Amino acid sequence: MDAQKKNVIVMDLALNKDLNLSFDEIELQMRAYAQEYKVPIIQDAGLAFLEMILRLYQPHTILEIGTAIGYSAIRMAHTIPASIVTIERNEEMVEQALKNIHLAKLDNRIKLIFKDALECFDDLKNQKFDLIFIDAAKAQYLNFFELFTPLLTEHGVVVCDNMSFHGLVLDPECYSKQSRSVRGLIRKLNHFKENLLQNSKFDTSIFNIGDGMAVSVRKG
Amino acid sequence: MDAQKKNVIVMDLALNKDLNLSFDEIELQMRAYAQEYKVPIIQDAGLAFLEMILRLYQPHTILEIGTAIGYSAIRMAHTIPASIVTIERNEEMVEQALKNIHLAKLDNRIKLIFKDALECFDDLKNQKFDLIFIDAAKAQYLNFFELFTPLLTEHGVVVCDNMSFHGLVLDPECYSKQSRSVRGLIRKLNHFKENLLQNSKFDTSIFNIGDGMAVSVRKG
Repeated sequence: MDAQKKNVIVMDLALNKDLNLSFDEIELQMRAYAQEYKVPIIQDAGLAFLEMILRLYQPHTILEIGTAIGYSAIRMAHTIPASIVTIERNEEMVEQALKNIHLAKLDNRIKLIFKDALECFDDLKNQKFDLIFIDAAKAQYLNFFELFTPLLTEHGVVVCDNMSFHGLVLDPECYSKQSRSVRGLIRKLNHFKENLLQNSKFDTSIFNIGDGMAVSVRKG
Repeated sequence: MDAQKKNVIVMDLALNKDLNLSFDEIELQMRAYAQEYKVPIIQDAGLAFLEMILRLYQPHTILEIGTAIGYSAIRMAHTIPASIVTIERNEEMVEQALKNIHLAKLDNRIKLIFKDALECFDDLKNQKFDLIFIDAAKAQYLNFFELFTPLLTEHGVVVCDNMSFHGLVLDPECYSKQSRSVRGLIRKLNHFKENLLQNSKFDTSIFNIGDGMAVSVRKG
């Protein structure tokens, strides 16, 4: 999306009555949109878990891989006063997210990058992040992890959603019933999990919360 | 237990070959003891969750209500370099815990108080704790919470185990089948949960992990 188009979206919003919505109303709108258009957003239990981590750890800077409509970025910014960079490659999602971030009056704390995350390293290489939240294309989790963890601060934390992939990762019987592409994703997620648990630079625990949340704390 | 008896236990240990056990071996011994003597110790998933919280939050001082055989205190001290005060009222448990703490060479960081926790406030009133872990008599959770949270540091955290009480808290069908005393405990735990969630001084989330873990972060 070019700068002009982005400005049009924001100008449209300036005339919009939605600008006076409360946070709860914006949240309801986002959830309704996600349901109607089948956009996967973080599950409630997973979100409660992520917010608990934010309250405990109080990161100043967060990198999110996978904005979708901005739901989790907005919730994170609402929970703690962190600065968030969030990356999304799908144009429709970017438009929705920009609208939602603007409605929530969080433009000053949430910066959205419209690009494939794997092509973003140069944009971010001079920044440091206290927490990285990965909630994007499941096939790329390992690549995201390897690409962006050099940007973590000391004792930085990586949180990954969808580690159980709707339970499929854990259920060998289900596995055989899946399409070839889903089986491929399951294999990749399992490979990523093994890799995480064996990574001696991080202490990783995986919890059966929401769609499965992994928390990896960088060792000192 | 008087000081003399405590010294005898520790002197016995000085002659004991167990003093050269590795941490893993001590842990296995504790788990075997807990199983043999039916001492309830924290479940593996709950422990992984607690340790993740410690790594994220890095508390310097921890208060534990309910030592039992010292398993969770020893695991906490092994995870981070915190100082721990732990309270236990059962003499047999205290003896086991003192042995285990000594075997794990953690006497310098784990201080055990042999008393009913509800009678301990005066012993502790001049100390501050970054984290309080409650894993003791379920009927008293609310009393423990109210008594000890004034000792929390700013943004201090309270973690409570056994919030689902082996699933009983969540299952109305099971409830009616329980003894009167168990029903009383379930009601008290439910009352505590409601109280926690409504307490405006803390942000509380309850997770279906292990036997149910509540995390309450004191608001700034």
